[in-house]
Amino acid sequence: MREMKLGLFFAPGGHHLAAWRHPDAYPNGFSFQSYISAAQTAERGLFDMVFVADVFSLTPDGMRADSFRFEPITLLSALAVATSKIGLVATATTSFNEPYNVARKFASLDHISGGRAGWNIVTSSSPLEAFNFGLEEHLNHAERYRRAHEFVEVVRGLWDSWDDDAIAIDKTEGIFFDPAKMHMLNHKGAHYRVRGPLSLPRSPQGHPILVQAGSSEDGRNLAAEFAEVIFTIQRDLAEAQAFYADVKAKVAAFGRDPGHALIMPGVLPIVGRTRHEARDRYEQLQALIHPQAGLAALSRTLGTDLTGVDIDGPLPEIRSEKLSETRAMGMVETARRDGLTVRQVYERLVVSKGHRQVVGTAADIADTLQEWFEAGGADGYNIMPAMMPNGLTDFVELVVPELQRRGLYRRAYRGNTLRDHLGLPRPADLAAPVSREQATVRAR
Amino acid sequence: MREMKLGLFFAPGGHHLAAWRHPDAYPNGFSFQSYISAAQTAERGLFDMVFVADVFSLTPDGMRADSFRFEPITLLSALAVATSKIGLVATATTSFNEPYNVARKFASLDHISGGRAGWNIVTSSSPLEAFNFGLEEHLNHAERYRRAHEFVEVVRGLWDSWDDDAIAIDKTEGIFFDPAKMHMLNHKGAHYRVRGPLSLPRSPQGHPILVQAGSSEDGRNLAAEFAEVIFTIQRDLAEAQAFYADVKAKVAAFGRDPGHALIMPGVLPIVGRTRHEARDRYEQLQALIHPQAGLAALSRTLGTDLTGVDIDGPLPEIRSEKLSETRAMGMVETARRDGLTVRQVYERLVVSKGHRQVVGTAADIADTLQEWFEAGGADGYNIMPAMMPNGLTDFVELVVPELQRRGLYRRAYRGNTLRDHLGLPRPADLAAPVSREQATVRAR
Ligand SMILES: Cc1cc2nc3c(=O)[nH]c(=O)nc-3n(C[C@H](O)[C@H](O)[C@H](O)COP(=O)(O)O)c2cc1C
Ligand SMILES: Cc1cc2nc3c(=O)[nH]c(=O)nc-3n(C[C@H](O)[C@H](O)[C@H](O)COP(=O)(O)O)c2cc1C
Repeated sequence: MREMKLGLFFAPGGHHLAAWRHPDAYPNGFSFQSYISAAQTAERGLFDMVFVADVFSLTPDGMRADSFRFEPITLLSALAVATSKIGLVATATTSFNEPYNVARKFASLDHISGGRAGWNIVTSSSPLEAFNFGLEEHLNHAERYRRAHEFVEVVRGLWDSWDDDAIAIDKTEGIFFDPAKMHMLNHKGAHYRVRGPLSLPRSPQGHPILVQAGSSEDGRNLAAEFAEVIFTIQRDLAEAQAFYADVKAKVAAFGRDPGHALIMPGVLPIVGRTRHEARDRYEQLQALIHPQAGLAALSRTLGTDLTGVDIDGPLPEIRSEKLSETRAMGMVETARRDGLTVRQVYERLVVSKGHRQVVGTAADIADTLQEWFEAGGADGYNIMPAMMPNGLTDFVELVVPELQRRGLYRRAYRGNTLRDHLGLPRPADLAAPVSREQATVRAR
Repeated sequence: MREMKLGLFFAPGGHHLAAWRHPDAYPNGFSFQSYISAAQTAERGLFDMVFVADVFSLTPDGMRADSFRFEPITLLSALAVATSKIGLVATATTSFNEPYNVARKFASLDHISGGRAGWNIVTSSSPLEAFNFGLEEHLNHAERYRRAHEFVEVVRGLWDSWDDDAIAIDKTEGIFFDPAKMHMLNHKGAHYRVRGPLSLPRSPQGHPILVQAGSSEDGRNLAAEFAEVIFTIQRDLAEAQAFYADVKAKVAAFGRDPGHALIMPGVLPIVGRTRHEARDRYEQLQALIHPQAGLAALSRTLGTDLTGVDIDGPLPEIRSEKLSETRAMGMVETARRDGLTVRQVYERLVVSKGHRQVVGTAADIADTLQEWFEAGGADGYNIMPAMMPNGLTDFVELVVPELQRRGLYRRAYRGNTLRDHLGLPRPADLAAPVSREQATVRAR
């Protein structure tokens, strides 16, 4: 039976822009402990994975709770020891890293966690990030994605540096590994030259899971070629179905099994024991949005300084070259179409970073998750609790059991690796006979 | 009272080149669990820190046990959760990383571990590493060190991005941090341009501990300017005293307190309940050196392929430009002076990577550690167990109590951070009145 996949998208205070201001919410400081509890709660809820984003989203006004973040790979490596089953997906950008370092970190995390690592491949859209890496401006979109393709190829090549059985420890003969089972990469491409091999044995999953979240044409192509999990922003079922169909077709065009590319839109749930309670919680959070913080978040998303505009007037004209992200374009379109004021844009769209908000009882939320899942809109969801920790505990205690009753969700982990949870095959090593899917991959 | 500092230099099977072949030794595979046990044993022995090297030392013959290594920062971050007091020092090279990434990783590790992080600054000496980072050959020595100086300055600057009390969470007013307590770096140097700030609050130790291990003139200067812990290879007391005096004088010349730069030579101990037992253990290990592995290790250390030489003849002439490391030069000198054969060179020097070997009872070993410590040769030691796990357990169970009885070593941890253990002051944030030592640092 097809089962829904669930990820927890980390956000210390919650994903709602103003949640951190709620008295019940984190943060009370900057705390690793809050991540441990969140990961353990998600594991109690049998989630497939936790996911940590990595964006340089610091706004100097001091009004945002997501200004500070742990470096993703140190965070997940520590969480590997505090959990035992849940998958651990970290973001790493192809724009400001070396492929050798990225390959090694994720392979190492995969070893340490016993096969639970995943890499969310991003190219980074904020120019603010570029300023920390010696650049005056960010690489352009097309160039970023060209580098990303080559980068991912190098990383995968490095992950295949060793056959699975290369460690041949023979103490008597003094043989530690079998040299015939080592593969130099000798990659010489347009952007990278990498000899290999990686100084780590092949990792438990063969390759850590590849995740991608770009929605532009280039982003979808990268996802279609490589990604096993695809994060996306979808607020409307019809659009989600169109995205789902398009990406699955692109995956097939790359010679891959569309079932091996799982599409997981983000969902910000606000659960109540009654609809009234849920609505109440939602309104409490909306009331906490400081207009200045709302405006700053909108300005940043749109790449345009909106200081001084009338927040109860219509959204001003935004120069389209400012809209570096597909997400931002979608917001402007929605605002135009629905005639939203500036305040409405940030209240309805920006508070959840563009993601779908669902407000209701556990049954209501299960209904809509089930609907999209069965109607070809999603293979699962990246759950974005509005407020932490309550938003997550409510989801795990109320919504998960409802999904289980409906036969849509596992009642126990059936394996130990993230690949096991997601039902994805383990890529064979280079010594193995080549499968059709792998042959396509290797041919390119 | 002045107390000896102790670090555990990690090596899965042990530091003796052939230890892994011993039936009692790790490895039986590639195992994260072996690192957890080692770190916990060292913590039981009240060690100041564990230390993980990062060198690309893979030889394609398959005869070395240190071919495979975890990526250091993932390893230590995971160990942070499995331990509670011991310091965690990881190596990261300034040659193939970006300062922003390094600053962030170590600050994050410092947060996750509650103030136990240290960074071993290296410039990487093996050209094999360069081939994985787009280069045809390694940067030359002087250029590497020039970059390293600027790199460390940037990293320290980023660690001061925030005052200690910048997080001002005021839920009522919607203020998450105080913008007046944020400092942009705006670094524009010869090699790096980095704007900052770091997207992490200032870490528990202010700055993670800076460690350095270069022995060349350039290496010593880098150490003298920045390092709070200095690793070194010293086999002879007189030379160790000369090194100690030279480095401490250089530290003072930089306007720093020489007591804030702790010198820790490596020691490979082989402990026995009797001298006879210790000698026996040593000889057992020596007998396990496969001549081919000994020769390969020596070839690699000297940067010169020695295949085919008569191992019982004298060391052939080595072209001095091949000797990229101070360590290698020292070995060639010792070999010439003492008229060693090739076999003797690898048996006496290379098996412990050039470090001092001490063989005897707990009292013998305590004697020699005490002698150097009191005679101005060392502030502590980087302990390199010959074989794991026994070599470490023996040290902790036999030598540590002996050092405690002599009043040379702590009987309990007195603080929680690595700075506490090492007795090093916490650098003040940029808002604090400037101390003399810091003024010197800031002026440059
Ligand atoms: C759920 C989700 C998570 C994302 N996480 C990150 C992230 O951590 N870092 C980042 O730079 N971009 C992140 N993105 C943005 C995309 O990966 C991508 O960089 C952005 O949408 C621009 O790419 P595009 O032009 O192909 O749409 C995320 C997007 C989504 C939908
Ligand atoms: C105890 C110790 C540990 C070291 N660890 C590393 C390491 O992890 N990675 C590395 O590239 N070099 C390491 N080195 C080598 C030095 O940091 C330095 O790169 C080398 O000695 C060459 O520098 P020099 O020319 O200044 O001597 C280590 C040296 C010592 C003594």
